[in-house]
Amino acid sequence: MKKDRGLLFVLSGPSGVGKGTIMKEIRQQETNLKYSISMTTRQPREGEIDGVHYHFTEKEKFQEMIENNKLLEWAEFVGNYYGTPIDYVTETLDKGDDVILEIEVQGALQVKKNYPEAIFIFLMPPSLSELRNRIVGRGTEPEDIINNRLSIAREEIEMMSLYDYVVENDKVELACERIKAISIAEHCRRDRLEDKYKQLLEAE
Amino acid sequence: MKKDRGLLFVLSGPSGVGKGTIMKEIRQQETNLKYSISMTTRQPREGEIDGVHYHFTEKEKFQEMIENNKLLEWAEFVGNYYGTPIDYVTETLDKGDDVILEIEVQGALQVKKNYPEAIFIFLMPPSLSELRNRIVGRGTEPEDIINNRLSIAREEIEMMSLYDYVVENDKVELACERIKAISIAEHCRRDRLEDKYKQLLEAE
Repeated sequence: MKKDRGLLFVLSGPSGVGKGTIMKEIRQQETNLKYSISMTTRQPREGEIDGVHYHFTEKEKFQEMIENNKLLEWAEFVGNYYGTPIDYVTETLDKGDDVILEIEVQGALQVKKNYPEAIFIFLMPPSLSELRNRIVGRGTEPEDIINNRLSIAREEIEMMSLYDYVVENDKVELACERIKAISIAEHCRRDRLEDKYKQLLEAE
Repeated sequence: MKKDRGLLFVLSGPSGVGKGTIMKEIRQQETNLKYSISMTTRQPREGEIDGVHYHFTEKEKFQEMIENNKLLEWAEFVGNYYGTPIDYVTETLDKGDDVILEIEVQGALQVKKNYPEAIFIFLMPPSLSELRNRIVGRGTEPEDIINNRLSIAREEIEMMSLYDYVVENDKVELACERIKAISIAEHCRRDRLEDKYKQLLEAE
C-alpha cells in the first residue's frame, strides 16, 4: 500500500544557536528524518566532501537553478550562494519519508512561503532562559543592560511566532530528544490523521 | 524559580482497545507523567491494592464527592461508581508536574468540558488500519460486511474529532513511544511558550 506523504521539518533559529551541532547529532542517530544537503557555490574546506557536507556547484549552475525555481530557498552570504535543491525534498516526501532542513531564519521564511505545510522548529539559545532567570530572580543588573537583553529577547520572540515549536538548546541531547519527539508526535496529530481516514472512507 | 504549570494528558479510546495495557507499560517506564489513580466503589479484586490500582471507597463518600464537585469526571458501570478525584490532579499540575489519566470516552468528554486545556489522545484499535488495508487493497469482501465495518470506523472517526492526537495501538512499545513523544512535543509548542515568554517580558 502507498505510504502517506512525508513531513517536512525546518530547523532554524538565530545564528550561533548551535543548529549545526544539533543537526550533526541527529544525523548520527537512528530516526526517520532524511537530511537535505544544501547546495553552495563556495569552495570546499578541508575535509568537506561533496554530497555529504554540501553539494558544491558553480555560480552559473546555481543562478540557473534560481531562474528555474529549482530551489526551495536560497541566500547569498559574502559572495557565495547557499540553497536547498527542491527535487531531493519533493522526491523524498513523495516516497513517504520525512525530511529535515537546517537553515537560517531568512531561508525558513522562504520555505514558509513555498511550502506552508512544513513544520517549523525554532532553536532557542539557552541565554534567553538564563536571561529569564536573571530578570525574574535577581533584579540587580543595571537598567540599560536589562533593557538591551530584553530587546534582543523581544526580537527573537517576534521571529518565534512564525514557528510551530520552540526547542531550547540547553543541552544537545535534550534538544535532539525534543526534535525527535516532535517528529513522532506530528504524525499522531488528529487533524492530519482525520483527513486521511475521512478521504479513505469517502473514496469507498 | 517557580515551575510552569504541568500539562494534563487524557488517554482514552473505545473499550477493549488496550488502554490499560498501555498505561501499565507507561507507568513502568521513566517519564515525567504522573498517573492519576481512579476512585471506585466496587470491591477490590484479588491482588488489587488500595492507592495503587484504585482508591477504594464507600458509595456515600463517592456521592458526597460528586455533590461537592470533587471529581474531574465520573461514571457508573453495573452499579459501581468510577471517577477521577480532582484534588490530586490540581495539586500535581500546580507543582509543575504532568498528569496522565486513562479513562473511557464518556469520561474524556467530561474532562474536555471541565478542563478544556487538557491534551486528548485517542487510542485507536489496530483493526481500523487493518480495515483500511482491506478496503483499499482488496475489494473482495461482501458489501454488508464492508458497510458494517465502515460504519464502526465512521463512529470512531466522529469521536476522534474531539481529540488532539490519534495513537494507533499496533504495538504496545510503539504506542507508548508515541504517547511519550506527544508529552515532550507538547511542552515545545510555540503557542504555549510564546505566552510564557511574553508574560515574562511584559511583567518586567
